[in-house]
Amino acid sequence: MNLIEALQWRYATKKMNGQKIQEEKVERILDAIRLAPSSIGLQPYNVIVVTDTALKQQILPIANNQQQIVDCSHLLVFAAWDNVTEERGNSFIELNAAVRNVPVESLGQLHAYTKSFTVRPQEVNFNWTARQAYIAFGVGIAPAALEEVDATPMEGFQGPELDVLLQLDELGLKSVTLLPLGYRDAPNDWLAPLAKVRWEKEKLFIRK
Amino acid sequence: MNLIEALQWRYATKKMNGQKIQEEKVERILDAIRLAPSSIGLQPYNVIVVTDTALKQQILPIANNQQQIVDCSHLLVFAAWDNVTEERGNSFIELNAAVRNVPVESLGQLHAYTKSFTVRPQEVNFNWTARQAYIAFGVGIAPAALEEVDATPMEGFQGPELDVLLQLDELGLKSVTLLPLGYRDAPNDWLAPLAKVRWEKEKLFIRK
Repeated sequence: MNLIEALQWRYATKKMNGQKIQEEKVERILDAIRLAPSSIGLQPYNVIVVTDTALKQQILPIANNQQQIVDCSHLLVFAAWDNVTEERGNSFIELNAAVRNVPVESLGQLHAYTKSFTVRPQEVNFNWTARQAYIAFGVGIAPAALEEVDATPMEGFQGPELDVLLQLDELGLKSVTLLPLGYRDAPNDWLAPLAKVRWEKEKLFIRK
Repeated sequence: MNLIEALQWRYATKKMNGQKIQEEKVERILDAIRLAPSSIGLQPYNVIVVTDTALKQQILPIANNQQQIVDCSHLLVFAAWDNVTEERGNSFIELNAAVRNVPVESLGQLHAYTKSFTVRPQEVNFNWTARQAYIAFGVGIAPAALEEVDATPMEGFQGPELDVLLQLDELGLKSVTLLPLGYRDAPNDWLAPLAKVRWEKEKLFIRK
Protein backbone atom coordinates (compact mmCIF):
# COMPACT_ATOMS: atom_id res chain seq x y z
CA MET A 1 0.00 0.00 0.00
CA ASN A 2 1.18 3.50 -0.68
CA LEU A 3 0.50 6.17 1.93
CA ILE A 4 -2.78 7.39 0.42
CA GLU A 5 -4.09 3.83 0.24
CA ALA A 6 -2.90 3.23 3.80
CA LEU A 7 -4.65 6.36 5.07
CA GLN A 8 -7.82 5.28 3.24
CA TRP A 9 -7.49 1.84 4.84
CA ARG A 10 -7.07 3.13 8.38
CA TYR A 11 -9.99 4.32 10.50
CA ALA A 12 -10.58 5.06 14.16
CA THR A 13 -10.99 1.41 15.09
CA LYS A 14 -13.66 0.96 17.74
CA LYS A 15 -13.12 -2.77 18.37
CA MET A 16 -9.71 -4.38 18.50
CA ASN A 17 -9.01 -8.09 18.71
CA GLY A 18 -6.25 -8.24 21.32
CA GLN A 19 -3.60 -9.53 18.91
CA LYS A 20 -0.04 -8.44 19.71
CA ILE A 21 1.89 -6.35 17.22
CA GLN A 22 5.34 -7.61 16.25
CA GLU A 23 7.97 -5.65 18.15
CA GLU A 24 9.81 -4.51 15.02
CA LYS A 25 6.63 -2.94 13.67
CA VAL A 26 6.07 -1.07 16.92
CA GLU A 27 9.67 0.11 16.92
CA ARG A 28 9.34 1.46 13.36
CA ILE A 29 6.24 3.41 14.39
CA LEU A 30 8.12 4.80 17.40
CA ASP A 31 11.13 5.60 15.21
CA ALA A 32 8.88 7.65 12.93
CA ILE A 33 7.33 9.47 15.88
CA ARG A 34 10.81 10.23 17.16
CA LEU A 35 11.64 11.85 13.82
CA ALA A 36 8.63 14.20 13.93
CA PRO A 37 9.54 17.87 13.61
CA SER A 38 8.87 20.36 16.39
CA SER A 39 9.52 24.02 17.00
CA ILE A 40 13.31 24.56 17.20
CA GLY A 41 13.46 20.75 17.44
CA LEU A 42 12.69 20.82 21.15
CA GLN A 43 10.27 17.83 21.16
CA PRO A 44 8.73 19.05 24.44
CA TYR A 45 6.86 15.85 25.20
CA ASN A 46 7.23 12.19 26.03
CA VAL A 47 5.32 9.19 24.78
CA ILE A 48 4.41 6.54 27.32
CA VAL A 49 4.20 3.08 25.78
CA VAL A 50 1.88 0.93 27.87
CA THR A 51 1.81 -2.84 27.39
CA ASP A 52 1.16 -3.96 30.97
CA THR A 53 -2.25 -5.62 31.13
CA ALA A 54 -3.05 -4.61 34.68
CA LEU A 55 -2.13 -1.00 33.97
CA LYS A 56 -4.32 -0.94 30.86
CA GLN A 57 -7.19 -2.21 33.02
CA GLN A 58 -6.64 0.71 35.40
CA ILE A 59 -6.63 3.15 32.48
CA LEU A 60 -9.87 1.77 31.05
CA PRO A 61 -12.33 3.65 33.32
CA ILE A 62 -10.22 6.82 33.01
CA ALA A 63 -10.74 6.61 29.24
CA ASN A 64 -14.53 6.32 29.44
CA ASN A 65 -14.35 2.54 29.20
CA GLN A 66 -13.31 2.61 25.57
CA GLN A 67 -12.44 -1.06 25.08
CA GLN A 68 -9.54 -0.40 22.71
CA ILE A 69 -7.55 0.55 25.82
CA VAL A 70 -7.48 -3.10 26.90
CA ASP A 71 -7.90 -4.74 23.49
CA CYS A 72 -4.99 -2.92 21.91
CA SER A 73 -1.47 -4.29 21.82
CA HIS A 74 0.43 -1.11 22.71
CA LEU A 75 -1.19 1.99 24.15
CA LEU A 76 0.66 5.22 23.36
CA VAL A 77 0.07 8.15 25.71
CA PHE A 78 1.30 11.45 24.31
CA ALA A 79 2.22 13.67 27.25
CA ALA A 80 3.43 17.25 26.80
CA TRP A 81 5.84 19.05 29.10
CA ASP A 82 3.80 21.05 31.62
CA ASN A 83 6.29 23.90 31.23
CA VAL A 84 9.61 24.77 29.64
CA THR A 85 12.12 25.14 32.43
CA GLU A 86 15.73 26.26 32.31
CA GLU A 87 16.79 22.72 33.18
CA ARG A 88 14.90 21.30 30.23
CA GLY A 89 16.26 24.00 27.95
CA ASN A 90 19.78 23.24 29.06
CA SER A 91 19.34 19.51 28.50
CA PHE A 92 18.18 20.25 24.98
CA ILE A 93 21.18 22.45 24.28
CA GLU A 94 23.51 19.79 25.66
CA LEU A 95 21.83 17.24 23.39
CA ASN A 96 22.38 19.50 20.37
CA ALA A 97 26.01 20.08 21.32
CA ALA A 98 26.62 16.35 21.75
CA VAL A 99 24.91 15.24 18.51
CA ARG A 100 26.54 17.96 16.42
CA ASN A 101 29.83 17.78 18.26
CA VAL A 102 30.05 21.49 18.92
CA PRO A 103 30.62 23.43 22.14
CA VAL A 104 27.53 24.46 24.10
CA GLU A 105 28.78 28.05 23.89
CA SER A 106 28.32 28.05 20.11
CA LEU A 107 24.58 27.48 20.46
CA GLY A 108 23.66 30.99 21.54
CA GLN A 109 20.65 31.26 19.27
CA LEU A 110 19.10 28.07 20.60
CA HIS A 111 19.84 29.24 24.12
CA ALA A 112 18.06 32.54 23.40
CA TYR A 113 15.01 30.61 22.20
CA THR A 114 14.81 28.30 25.18
CA LYS A 115 15.43 31.22 27.54
CA SER A 116 12.54 33.13 25.94
CA PHE A 117 10.25 30.17 26.58
CA THR A 118 11.16 29.95 30.27
CA VAL A 119 9.83 33.47 30.90
CA ARG A 120 6.44 32.83 29.30
CA PRO A 121 3.48 31.96 31.54
CA GLN A 122 3.22 28.25 32.26
CA GLU A 123 -0.13 28.01 30.48
CA VAL A 124 1.22 29.56 27.30
CA ASN A 125 4.06 27.06 27.32
CA PHE A 126 1.77 24.12 27.90
CA ASN A 127 -0.60 25.12 25.09
CA TRP A 128 2.43 25.24 22.86
CA THR A 129 4.07 22.00 24.04
CA ALA A 130 0.70 20.28 23.55
CA ARG A 131 0.62 21.43 19.94
CA GLN A 132 4.11 20.04 19.40
CA ALA A 133 2.93 16.72 20.82
CA TYR A 134 0.05 16.80 18.36
CA ILE A 135 2.51 17.09 15.47
CA ALA A 136 4.22 13.90 16.65
CA PHE A 137 0.81 12.30 17.11
CA GLY A 138 -0.09 13.23 13.51
CA VAL A 139 3.22 11.94 12.19
CA GLY A 140 2.58 8.65 14.02
CA ILE A 141 -0.65 8.04 12.09
CA ALA A 142 1.25 7.47 8.84
CA PRO A 143 3.67 4.69 9.89
CA ALA A 144 0.94 2.85 11.76
CA ALA A 145 -1.21 2.79 8.61
CA LEU A 146 1.75 1.79 6.44
CA GLU A 147 2.49 -1.09 8.81
CA GLU A 148 -1.20 -2.08 8.58
CA VAL A 149 -1.51 -1.52 12.28
CA ASP A 150 -4.75 -0.02 13.49
CA ALA A 151 -4.57 3.12 15.56
CA THR A 152 -7.41 4.92 17.29
CA PRO A 153 -6.83 8.60 18.07
CA MET A 154 -8.51 9.36 21.40
CA GLU A 155 -9.05 12.56 23.29
CA GLY A 156 -11.88 11.22 25.43
CA PHE A 157 -10.20 10.55 28.76
CA GLN A 158 -9.65 12.26 32.10
CA GLY A 159 -6.17 13.73 31.71
CA PRO A 160 -5.55 14.68 35.35
CA GLU A 161 -6.53 11.20 36.56
CA LEU A 162 -4.32 9.52 34.00
CA ASP A 163 -1.43 11.79 34.98
CA VAL A 164 -1.76 10.65 38.59
CA LEU A 165 -2.00 6.97 37.64
CA LEU A 166 1.05 7.11 35.36
CA GLN A 167 2.89 9.42 37.78
CA LEU A 168 3.29 11.94 34.99
CA ASP A 169 2.98 14.93 37.31
CA GLU A 170 6.22 13.86 38.98
CA LEU A 171 7.85 14.02 35.56
CA GLY A 172 6.36 17.42 34.74
CA LEU A 173 4.12 15.96 32.05
CA LYS A 174 0.44 16.23 31.16
CA SER A 175 -1.23 13.64 28.96
CA VAL A 176 -2.88 15.20 25.91
CA THR A 177 -3.93 12.35 23.67
CA LEU A 178 -3.99 8.54 23.40
CA LEU A 179 -3.22 6.24 20.51
CA PRO A 180 -4.02 2.57 21.07
CA LEU A 181 -2.21 0.43 18.49
CA GLY A 182 -3.54 -2.98 17.59
CA TYR A 183 -5.67 -4.88 15.13
CA ARG A 184 -9.28 -4.37 14.18
CA ASP A 185 -11.94 -6.92 15.03
CA ALA A 186 -13.82 -5.87 11.91
CA PRO A 187 -16.85 -8.18 12.16
CA ASN A 188 -17.59 -6.75 15.60
CA ASP A 189 -16.77 -3.12 14.86
CA TRP A 190 -19.78 -0.98 13.91
CA LEU A 191 -17.51 1.60 12.32
CA ALA A 192 -15.58 -0.82 10.10
CA PRO A 193 -18.12 -0.98 7.24
CA LEU A 194 -18.98 2.72 7.19
CA ALA A 195 -17.62 5.06 4.52
CA LYS A 196 -14.88 7.46 5.55
CA VAL A 197 -16.17 11.01 5.86
CA ARG A 198 -13.95 13.95 4.92
CA TRP A 199 -14.66 17.45 3.69
CA GLU A 200 -14.53 17.67 -0.09
CA LYS A 201 -11.14 18.76 -1.31
CA GLU A 202 -12.65 21.94 -2.77
CA LYS A 203 -14.02 22.80 0.64
CA LEU A 204 -10.99 21.91 2.79
CA PHE A 205 -8.38 23.63 0.62
CA ILE A 206 -8.56 27.28 -0.33
CA ARG A 207 -6.37 28.02 -3.36
CA LYS A 208 -4.78 31.43 -3.72
CA MET B 1 12.76 5.46 0.35
CA ASN B 2 10.64 3.99 3.09
CA LEU B 3 9.02 6.33 5.59
CA ILE B 4 11.81 6.17 8.17
CA GLU B 5 14.42 6.93 5.50
CA ALA B 6 12.22 9.75 4.18
CA LEU B 7 11.84 11.25 7.65
CA GLN B 8 15.60 11.00 8.13
CA TRP B 9 16.09 12.71 4.75
CA ARG B 10 13.75 15.61 5.48
CA TYR B 11 14.77 18.58 7.57
CA ALA B 12 13.43 22.07 8.22
CA THR B 13 14.87 23.46 5.00
CA LYS B 14 16.12 27.00 5.50
CA LYS B 15 16.95 27.77 1.85
CA MET B 16 14.76 26.66 -1.04
CA ASN B 17 15.64 26.98 -4.71
CA GLY B 18 12.37 28.26 -6.19
CA GLN B 19 11.72 25.13 -8.26
CA LYS B 20 8.06 24.29 -8.83
CA ILE B 21 6.65 21.00 -7.53
CA GLN B 22 4.75 18.84 -10.02
CA GLU B 23 1.03 19.28 -9.47
CA GLU B 24 0.37 15.57 -8.97
CA LYS B 25 2.89 15.47 -6.12
CA VAL B 26 1.22 18.44 -4.46
CA GLU B 27 -2.20 16.84 -4.86
CA ARG B 28 -0.99 13.61 -3.25
CA ILE B 29 0.31 15.60 -0.27
CA LEU B 30 -3.04 17.41 -0.01
CA ASP B 31 -4.91 14.11 -0.36
CA ALA B 32 -2.98 12.74 2.60
CA ILE B 33 -3.68 15.85 4.67
CA ARG B 34 -7.35 15.50 3.82
CA LEU B 35 -7.29 11.96 5.21
CA ALA B 36 -5.84 13.05 8.56
CA PRO B 37 -7.95 11.99 11.53
CA SER B 38 -9.56 14.51 13.86
CA SER B 39 -11.84 14.40 16.86
CA ILE B 40 -15.23 12.98 15.76
CA GLY B 41 -13.91 13.53 12.21
CA LEU B 42 -14.84 17.21 12.32
CA GLN B 43 -11.67 18.53 10.61
CA PRO B 44 -12.26 21.99 12.11
CA TYR B 45 -9.75 23.80 9.93
CA ASN B 46 -8.90 24.79 6.38
CA VAL B 47 -5.61 24.76 4.55
CA ILE B 48 -4.84 27.73 2.33
CA VAL B 49 -2.61 26.79 -0.60
CA VAL B 50 -0.73 29.87 -1.76
CA THR B 51 1.07 29.87 -5.11
CA ASP B 52 0.57 33.49 -6.13
CA THR B 53 3.96 35.21 -6.23
CA ALA B 54 2.72 38.65 -5.25
CA LEU B 55 0.80 37.24 -2.31
CA LYS B 56 3.85 35.31 -1.12
CA GLN B 57 5.81 38.58 -1.24
CA GLN B 58 3.20 40.18 1.01
CA ILE B 59 3.38 37.28 3.43
CA LEU B 60 7.18 37.44 3.64
CA PRO B 61 7.48 40.30 6.19
CA ILE B 62 4.59 38.82 8.20
CA ALA B 63 6.68 35.64 8.50
CA ASN B 64 9.77 37.38 9.81
CA ASN B 65 11.28 37.51 6.31
CA GLN B 66 11.91 33.78 6.24
CA GLN B 67 12.89 33.38 2.61
CA GLN B 68 11.25 29.98 2.17
CA ILE B 69 7.95 31.89 1.96
CA VAL B 70 8.93 33.23 -1.46
CA ASP B 71 11.38 30.50 -2.50
CA CYS B 72 8.91 27.68 -1.95
CA SER B 73 6.63 26.30 -4.62
CA HIS B 74 3.42 25.99 -2.59
CA LEU B 75 2.88 27.63 0.78
CA LEU B 76 0.39 25.81 3.00
CA VAL B 77 -1.30 27.86 5.71
CA PHE B 78 -3.06 25.74 8.31
CA ALA B 79 -5.94 27.77 9.72
CA ALA B 80 -8.18 26.50 12.49
CA TRP B 81 -11.84 27.41 12.96
CA ASP B 82 -12.03 30.31 15.41
CA ASN B 83 -15.05 28.63 16.99
CA VAL B 84 -17.45 25.74 16.55
CA THR B 85 -20.81 27.21 15.62
CA GLU B 86 -24.15 25.50 15.15
CA GLU B 87 -23.94 26.24 11.42
CA ARG B 88 -20.59 24.48 11.14
CA GLY B 89 -21.85 21.58 13.21
CA ASN B 90 -24.88 21.22 10.97
CA SER B 91 -22.76 21.32 7.81
CA PHE B 92 -20.67 18.52 9.24
CA ILE B 93 -23.71 16.42 10.05
CA GLU B 94 -25.09 17.00 6.55
CA LEU B 95 -21.74 15.91 5.12
CA ASN B 96 -21.87 12.70 7.17
CA ALA B 97 -25.44 12.02 6.13
CA ALA B 98 -24.61 12.56 2.46
CA VAL B 99 -21.42 10.45 2.42
CA ARG B 100 -22.99 7.59 4.38
CA ASN B 101 -26.36 7.93 2.70
CA VAL B 102 -28.29 8.03 5.94
CA PRO B 103 -30.89 10.50 7.22
CA VAL B 104 -29.61 13.44 9.26
CA GLU B 105 -32.00 12.34 12.01
CA SER B 106 -30.05 9.11 12.48
CA LEU B 107 -26.91 11.01 13.49
CA GLY B 108 -28.05 11.98 16.96
CA GLN B 109 -24.77 11.11 18.65
CA LEU B 110 -22.76 13.31 16.27
CA HIS B 111 -25.30 16.07 16.78
CA ALA B 112 -24.90 15.78 20.55
CA TYR B 113 -21.14 16.15 20.17
CA THR B 114 -21.28 19.20 17.93
CA LYS B 115 -23.94 20.75 20.15
CA SER B 116 -21.69 20.27 23.19
CA PHE B 117 -18.89 22.12 21.40
CA THR B 118 -21.06 25.12 20.55
CA VAL B 119 -21.69 25.84 24.23
CA ARG B 120 -18.01 25.85 25.17
CA PRO B 121 -16.17 29.18 25.45
CA GLN B 122 -14.74 30.34 22.12
CA GLU B 123 -11.19 30.13 23.44
CA VAL B 124 -11.61 26.51 24.53
CA ASN B 125 -12.91 25.64 21.10
CA PHE B 126 -10.09 27.44 19.33
CA ASN B 127 -7.40 25.75 21.43
CA TRP B 128 -8.99 22.47 20.45
CA THR B 129 -9.50 23.23 16.74
CA ALA B 130 -5.86 24.35 16.61
CA ARG B 131 -4.76 20.96 17.98
CA GLN B 132 -6.81 19.21 15.32
CA ALA B 133 -5.10 21.34 12.68
CA TYR B 134 -1.76 20.27 14.13
CA ILE B 135 -2.69 16.61 13.60
CA ALA B 136 -3.26 17.33 9.91
CA PHE B 137 -0.03 19.31 9.84
CA GLY B 138 1.81 16.32 11.31
CA VAL B 139 0.19 13.91 8.89
CA GLY B 140 1.31 16.19 6.02
CA ILE B 141 4.97 15.82 6.96
CA ALA B 142 5.01 12.15 5.91
CA PRO B 143 3.74 12.42 2.30
CA ALA B 144 5.94 15.44 1.62
CA ALA B 145 9.01 13.47 2.70
CA LEU B 146 7.92 10.39 0.74
CA GLU B 147 7.51 12.56 -2.37
CA GLU B 148 11.02 13.95 -1.73
CA VAL B 149 9.50 17.38 -1.38
CA ASP B 150 11.04 19.64 1.23
CA ALA B 151 8.74 21.10 3.86
CA THR B 152 9.61 23.64 6.53
CA PRO B 153 7.31 23.70 9.56
CA MET B 154 6.97 27.32 10.68
CA GLU B 155 5.33 28.90 13.67
CA GLY B 156 7.31 32.14 13.47
CA PHE B 157 4.81 34.54 11.91
CA GLN B 158 2.29 37.17 12.98
CA GLY B 159 -0.97 35.24 12.89
CA PRO B 160 -3.37 38.18 13.22
CA GLU B 161 -1.65 40.06 10.38
CA LEU B 162 -1.72 37.02 8.14
CA ASP B 163 -5.39 36.48 8.92
CA VAL B 164 -6.16 40.01 7.74
CA LEU B 165 -4.08 39.66 4.58
CA LEU B 166 -5.66 36.34 3.62
CA GLN B 167 -9.11 37.53 4.79
CA LEU B 168 -9.30 34.56 7.11
CA ASP B 169 -11.23 36.46 9.78
CA GLU B 170 -14.13 36.76 7.33
CA LEU B 171 -14.11 32.99 7.06
CA GLY B 172 -13.93 32.48 10.82
CA LEU B 173 -10.40 31.11 10.63
CA LYS B 174 -7.15 31.77 12.47
CA SER B 175 -3.83 30.74 10.97
CA VAL B 176 -1.86 28.48 13.30
CA THR B 177 1.09 27.19 11.33
CA LEU B 178 2.79 27.37 7.92
CA LEU B 179 4.31 24.70 5.75
CA PRO B 180 6.22 25.93 2.70
CA LEU B 181 6.70 23.08 0.22
CA GLY B 182 9.56 23.19 -2.26
CA TYR B 183 13.08 22.02 -2.89
CA ARG B 184 16.20 22.57 -0.85
CA ASP B 185 19.06 24.70 -2.12
CA ALA B 186 21.44 22.51 -0.17
CA PRO B 187 24.76 24.22 -1.03
CA ASN B 188 23.35 27.49 0.31
CA ASP B 189 21.50 26.10 3.30
CA TRP B 190 23.46 26.24 6.56
CA LEU B 191 21.23 23.59 8.10
CA ALA B 192 21.57 21.06 5.27
CA PRO B 193 24.89 19.52 6.40
CA LEU B 194 24.10 19.41 10.13
CA ALA B 195 23.16 16.19 11.89
CA LYS B 196 19.51 15.76 12.86
CA VAL B 197 18.98 16.16 16.59
CA ARG B 198 16.36 14.09 18.38
CA TRP B 199 16.03 12.90 21.97
CA GLU B 200 17.40 9.40 22.40
CA LYS B 201 14.68 6.79 22.08
CA GLU B 202 15.24 5.73 25.70
CA LYS B 203 14.59 9.31 26.80
CA LEU B 204 11.59 10.10 24.56
CA PHE B 205 9.66 6.88 25.20
CA ILE B 206 8.72 5.69 28.66
CA ARG B 207 7.89 1.99 28.67
CA LYS B 208 5.34 0.63 31.12
